[in-house]
Amino acid sequence: MNEVVELAKKAKEASHALSVASSRAKDAALHRMADDLVKSTDKILAENEKDMAAARERKISSAMMDRLLLTDERVKGMAEGLREVAALSDPVGEVIRGWRRPNGLLITRVRTTLGVIGMVFEARPNVVVDAAGLCLKAGSAALMRGGSEAIHSNIILARLLCEAATAAGMPDGCIQLIETTDRRAVMEMLKLNEYIDLVIPRGGHGLIQTVVDNSTIPVIKHFRGLTHTYVDAGADVGMAVAIVNNAKTQRPSTCNALETLLVHSKIAADALPPIAAKLRDAGVEIRGDEKVKVLAPDCVLAQEDDWSTEYLDLVISIKVVDDIEEAITHIRTYSSGLAEAIVTNDYAGASRFCAAVDSAAVYVNASIRFTDGGQFGLGAEIGITTDKIFPRGPMGLEALTSSKYVIYGEGQIRE
Amino acid sequence: MNEVVELAKKAKEASHALSVASSRAKDAALHRMADDLVKSTDKILAENEKDMAAARERKISSAMMDRLLLTDERVKGMAEGLREVAALSDPVGEVIRGWRRPNGLLITRVRTTLGVIGMVFEARPNVVVDAAGLCLKAGSAALMRGGSEAIHSNIILARLLCEAATAAGMPDGCIQLIETTDRRAVMEMLKLNEYIDLVIPRGGHGLIQTVVDNSTIPVIKHFRGLTHTYVDAGADVGMAVAIVNNAKTQRPSTCNALETLLVHSKIAADALPPIAAKLRDAGVEIRGDEKVKVLAPDCVLAQEDDWSTEYLDLVISIKVVDDIEEAITHIRTYSSGLAEAIVTNDYAGASRFCAAVDSAAVYVNASIRFTDGGQFGLGAEIGITTDKIFPRGPMGLEALTSSKYVIYGEGQIRE
Repeated sequence: MNEVVELAKKAKEASHALSVASSRAKDAALHRMADDLVKSTDKILAENEKDMAAARERKISSAMMDRLLLTDERVKGMAEGLREVAALSDPVGEVIRGWRRPNGLLITRVRTTLGVIGMVFEARPNVVVDAAGLCLKAGSAALMRGGSEAIHSNIILARLLCEAATAAGMPDGCIQLIETTDRRAVMEMLKLNEYIDLVIPRGGHGLIQTVVDNSTIPVIKHFRGLTHTYVDAGADVGMAVAIVNNAKTQRPSTCNALETLLVHSKIAADALPPIAAKLRDAGVEIRGDEKVKVLAPDCVLAQEDDWSTEYLDLVISIKVVDDIEEAITHIRTYSSGLAEAIVTNDYAGASRFCAAVDSAAVYVNASIRFTDGGQFGLGAEIGITTDKIFPRGPMGLEALTSSKYVIYGEGQIRE
Repeated sequence: MNEVVELAKKAKEASHALSVASSRAKDAALHRMADDLVKSTDKILAENEKDMAAARERKISSAMMDRLLLTDERVKGMAEGLREVAALSDPVGEVIRGWRRPNGLLITRVRTTLGVIGMVFEARPNVVVDAAGLCLKAGSAALMRGGSEAIHSNIILARLLCEAATAAGMPDGCIQLIETTDRRAVMEMLKLNEYIDLVIPRGGHGLIQTVVDNSTIPVIKHFRGLTHTYVDAGADVGMAVAIVNNAKTQRPSTCNALETLLVHSKIAADALPPIAAKLRDAGVEIRGDEKVKVLAPDCVLAQEDDWSTEYLDLVISIKVVDDIEEAITHIRTYSSGLAEAIVTNDYAGASRFCAAVDSAAVYVNASIRFTDGGQFGLGAEIGITTDKIFPRGPMGLEALTSSKYVIYGEGQIRE
């Protein structure tokens, strides 16, 4: 696996020039990358077809097949994504804070590049393009490792992107893919602290756990989205129906879709029937506790397992709680720390919920489906993390940066 | 090792109440902790004497003995440290940023508590007090594990602090020490992701490496301080002499003391003789390259090893470079990323140095000895990190916090 070390060294070398590249130069490279992807659509689709053929042979699920598939439209979409990243403002060099000390030293905290970002991901080839674009704009070299299912697509995409970037003046090694599908390559990569500054795994629970268990490099990760919405006693029922329905059904397969609904016992008789009716209309299976079953008799009785199950599907668990504290305790016990909401008209309740619920995003009177870098106005998103260490929540460009102190003096020495 | 899991669970439980404790309540607890330490001085010194007796028996170095020793004065000093932490402003709840989206959602990023902070440290018992105070003010529970050399001192300090804090209304479990000296306890602790949010090792290279290699919890670490100061061609020689002397000799055993001096060849003949004379007066051994040896004939000839040696002593390596780029390349190759300085009167040179040198602190015309939370005005410091992930540099209270998004809506749902 000497190859991986060599790639990582090359990435580190490239990162020095990238760290001082101007925004103009980086944006020009991103546009060149977009142009070249579109121009090479035929070549990309031909390589993608090799992955599709192998997938058909292994009889993988149609959902997986769809994620793997590239089309004219999808290549154009990836190119458009790169142009959107070019349009974002450059985070590198931002002076985050600055102050003068009594001895005259001017201390500034400046946003810097990270260096080398390791990306480990599964099937979807578009991750190669997203990650390469975001890392480049953030001034870091990307060292990527994709799943074997998409290996032909990944290789052609990474090569095209790297060629385009270097043709536009970026350093060779700024975008690299580990082309071997040998699993030992990932293990090797995860120990290269000396060259890689951050690892971001994107994929299923198994992949992320493997990365966390084996990496000696800091890992930015997000395991699951076991999310909650709590309808408080004095909530507006119409608002509650709309928010719950949107959170559950607008795109149930995403991590920020709603999994468990908590309803205050005082409003349950008013709110549950219309909520249940709306969800049933959308084809959602309801698993409720005994109190829910009284108000929505055709629901399934929830089992203990249901409170800790991330359905990612048209299924919801519902529990009636006696007060906001019971809701907070339930959330503390079962939440994965991604996103929770309260629907309420009570000022003290909203305050208490926001203070006590420790999730990456806590909402008052809104759908948790907004938990997304684009929806927050952060621009393109490389992932969402529930880690307590910065960054927490949706990760935009800023999450791919570091900072340093730059201190300006006139000869000061320490007494 | 079930004990460790139990302590961690208890810490997590305590962290919920701590996370919403008011600044006033936390400050009252810190003052109570300070008072009780002073009142219990005799008890503390008696326990410390057990550690000292064991140390004398094992014939450890006098420097180690001094680090282990507690006195009336030192107990007062620790109490004073707690009062200083109480006087710092509370970072928890700060709204870091906030903005309104086109759909009316008000998105705020709020500073929050981390939860449970694991501290792993060696000999010095004062770390128990420092860490307990900073973690409490930052609203997190502290789960500590000290070295066996200081076990009696650590146990009495941790118990006194926890009793004082709970007497002042803080939750039981807010300050805990793992009292067993069984090494397996640390290994167990480093895998408790579920309960511990961050691990901070403080000690020698071996300790830190062990923690990094075995922790599945994020680790904030700082390995070494292989630092540089570069004297540019147009520097003020008097300023260069003062800065270099201060950085090397003001406290040579600290990680932010100077290890390698780089001097531009154009100023070497003017600057090196007075720098060398000043250092020699302070008892510093100079290891220079061949060009240095011509200008300071009584210096030792530097070997390749010298450029990568952190002396932490009255020894300095000096190299003459042909230009700023050679200085930057040397720093890139050998620096540990903690602190570097340029002494210059050249605007473009200062800019280039600040942009290209990627260390936690980069100075223009000042001594790198300022690399310290107190000197930066951050208040008490729990450590310094060279990690690229936030926080980077001196770590004050803010470094012991996380953040979450709190989003205020009026019923918004995602289209």
